Amino acid sequence: MTAAVLQRLAAMMPPGRFLERPEQLAAYESDGLTAFRVRPSAVVIPETAEEVIALVRFCHAEKLPFVARGSGTSLSGGSLPVEGGIVVALNRLNRILRLDPAQRLAVVEPGVVNLDVTATAMVHGLHYAPDPSSQSICTVGGNVAFNSGGAHCLKYGMTANHVLGIKAVLATGEVVEWGGPSRETVGPDWCGLFTGNEGLFGIALEITLQLLPRAECYHTVLAGYRTLEQAGDAVSAVIASGLLPGAIEIMDALALEAAVAAVHAEYPPGCEAVLIVELEGPREVVAADRERLDQIIAASQPVEARPARDAEERMAIWKGRKSAFSAVGRLSPDFIVQDGVVPRRRLGEALRRIGDLARKSGLRVANVFHAGDGNLHPLILFNGRVPGELQQAEALAGEILKMCVEMGGSITGEHGVGMEKRDYLPAMFSPDEIDCMRRLRAAFDPLGIANPGKMFPSAEAPSLQHHGLHPLEKAGVISRE
Amino acid sequence: MTAAVLQRLAAMMPPGRFLERPEQLAAYESDGLTAFRVRPSAVVIPETAEEVIALVRFCHAEKLPFVARGSGTSLSGGSLPVEGGIVVALNRLNRILRLDPAQRLAVVEPGVVNLDVTATAMVHGLHYAPDPSSQSICTVGGNVAFNSGGAHCLKYGMTANHVLGIKAVLATGEVVEWGGPSRETVGPDWCGLFTGNEGLFGIALEITLQLLPRAECYHTVLAGYRTLEQAGDAVSAVIASGLLPGAIEIMDALALEAAVAAVHAEYPPGCEAVLIVELEGPREVVAADRERLDQIIAASQPVEARPARDAEERMAIWKGRKSAFSAVGRLSPDFIVQDGVVPRRRLGEALRRIGDLARKSGLRVANVFHAGDGNLHPLILFNGRVPGELQQAEALAGEILKMCVEMGGSITGEHGVGMEKRDYLPAMFSPDEIDCMRRLRAAFDPLGIANPGKMFPSAEAPSLQHHGLHPLEKAGVISRE
Repeated sequence: MTAAVLQRLAAMMPPGRFLERPEQLAAYESDGLTAFRVRPSAVVIPETAEEVIALVRFCHAEKLPFVARGSGTSLSGGSLPVEGGIVVALNRLNRILRLDPAQRLAVVEPGVVNLDVTATAMVHGLHYAPDPSSQSICTVGGNVAFNSGGAHCLKYGMTANHVLGIKAVLATGEVVEWGGPSRETVGPDWCGLFTGNEGLFGIALEITLQLLPRAECYHTVLAGYRTLEQAGDAVSAVIASGLLPGAIEIMDALALEAAVAAVHAEYPPGCEAVLIVELEGPREVVAADRERLDQIIAASQPVEARPARDAEERMAIWKGRKSAFSAVGRLSPDFIVQDGVVPRRRLGEALRRIGDLARKSGLRVANVFHAGDGNLHPLILFNGRVPGELQQAEALAGEILKMCVEMGGSITGEHGVGMEKRDYLPAMFSPDEIDCMRRLRAAFDPLGIANPGKMFPSAEAPSLQHHGLHPLEKAGVISRE
Repeated sequence: MTAAVLQRLAAMMPPGRFLERPEQLAAYESDGLTAFRVRPSAVVIPETAEEVIALVRFCHAEKLPFVARGSGTSLSGGSLPVEGGIVVALNRLNRILRLDPAQRLAVVEPGVVNLDVTATAMVHGLHYAPDPSSQSICTVGGNVAFNSGGAHCLKYGMTANHVLGIKAVLATGEVVEWGGPSRETVGPDWCGLFTGNEGLFGIALEITLQLLPRAECYHTVLAGYRTLEQAGDAVSAVIASGLLPGAIEIMDALALEAAVAAVHAEYPPGCEAVLIVELEGPREVVAADRERLDQIIAASQPVEARPARDAEERMAIWKGRKSAFSAVGRLSPDFIVQDGVVPRRRLGEALRRIGDLARKSGLRVANVFHAGDGNLHPLILFNGRVPGELQQAEALAGEILKMCVEMGGSITGEHGVGMEKRDYLPAMFSPDEIDCMRRLRAAFDPLGIANPGKMFPSAEAPSLQHHGLHPLEKAGVISRE
């Protein structure tokens, strides 16, 4: 990119909202927990939708690659730029534009923090259901881009199931508005197509979210088991019973150790695995379901089962679970969070195989996962300063992904493909399928400037290369600091 | 199309599965209830997915327009060909390929009849939720193409909410497989994009449907009111109470008259409107909700409220409601079923305005609608033999649609845009939005051969015209028999 173009971009922004000095850019070089480091040319910080539209139109006119960024909690490198690209930081678009309790919806800007939606809706007895572990910092825009999940998606579905409408500026600079309060769409689900686009189609400006009544009542049980397999079998028994809990989560020994160290969580001693099951719903239903659940858990022979006796105990259980990712950071200088899906009936088998793969590679793997929907989150611990360990960890992560696909699952449950998994896309999709996806992407972004270098396996957007921009193959280069 | 091409197509099919004689084609010239008549060049009747793929590839190679057809119950002209196009009749692809009660899913071919899915799943205590009025004859493939709704979509959502995976042959001849048992998709919801495509992307070959446990218990109330407004107010009161019934339906006086004539339905005398509310769920919840519902209904001052006392009475209530569309045929030689959406809080206002519009045009309008989600189905009665009445009816239908959009609603709830409403698309979408939709369509069907002349307003698929085919503008021509 020429300095002249950057200067013109700078001129579009007021002082303090165009960053280009290395020390300013440093914070935007990395994301949640991946090892990727990519430096943008500049960071722009719009405050209004109009500014975002103007920025995208500028990028389109100049064929500049850009990436939208919220809180940067992506776990797949999804919020990183390509070398030299522009970061559009959306944190200041953080207004809840409308809250309509009667229609049970909220219209929010993309920079609104996930948990703030629920915080605002709570006074009306409503909440926003998708609850990624990072919900206290991650933004709705990022959730939409990656179709984020969370512990309670077992019952309520992913972000896509809760997005009613999207106003967005496409990579072409066109502004579109799709969906709305009604689920009865005209033609295909254009709005659903935008959800999960990983930033490759454009930037969401306004998002209409469905709000749900808060559950009247919860029943949360934490059960400790001597083996992971026993915990896995308990999950199968719960599912087979026909109960539909709000959440079913498992943490293994290493994850427990981390949670104990980080937030002083307390778990039954001598356990190799902890299962968390949460029922939620109307009082009468939870009361009836609770009896059945207690019987199933008792029959699964836990070391100990601890029902939460009050809201405080419930919060403590969830605090331990939700802190697990970052807590693992205390056990190891570096780690890779993997995200894969296996059919839930094969959960026990998957865990055994991950254990085998870990032993073979000599690295430790902590497992924290949404057991109810077969969504695994193995955390691979390594030390980046030991030569070769990063590569070893990545190889192990790849083996786990291949195992997921082979077992009939998926390379990602909720973290997205991003930069991390683009080379695994062909493991799941045929050349025809990927071709069609590329054509769909081109319908939104013919120049390939919106978050290039992500999702699709090899070099993409040849039109950019013709224009002499930085080769996009380089986008995936890992440069450890 | 040249005779030589048709001959080669005929040679692909065994005897009896290639139709081209006028008397054979007659059954394929019309659809559910619209006034459109379009004659195809030929009808092909594949029996396997492989045959469908071969047919689409032939059409692609020859640039032949085709349309997939199930039972032809489309209410928007969606299953009609363009003049001279090929109809691919899918009724023989009617196998339920897999039923997995543990995973709660069924894999079906597109020609499977909607109700047959539930009939097969019932022994496992499961059912397929979307229930269009035509569910005893319409096919799942058609439901997917038009993202069909039904009375119980208030609680359970549209077809798109129940399609887990789709294997399809695109208009390019490529075969893709998207989605699967897990809701955790990779990237955008490719499968959701295919649902509701109105046949413009390709042909579904295998559809994976989510099955839900059958409700343990129902409570169905039929309440008669002196005025439509009172019935509308009762709906508002039910919604405002926070109850989420499985269905909330309203029929007006003319619809009641039709149901009485057709299936001997019995309604409280002296009623201008009947409201049907159905609660469903676990026994304890329905029991608790029932009390609240009964109070709300009582407070809404009905002429009479009749709870169904057993399954038989419940079925009788639904038989009257589901027969209403075809029953109106007894009151009038011809009618147009309109399908629009208004915000449900403006239901009363919408009904008043429809009444005004009807009076002004001098035509009778019967109203049957999914009140819970604001989905109106005005049936406009006319006599096609009276010169000018068809045009008058169409003008009134257009006025009603414009009213829906103006009130913040939609031009279609569940019948689709098809041939009928393509000229209303610009009333809801901006030129940029329609442009982007066209580009998306082109990603699936660059030649514009899959169900051309539908959904998009003006002439499309110019590539076809270059090849000397029948001008696609003619596709929308109404030729009354």
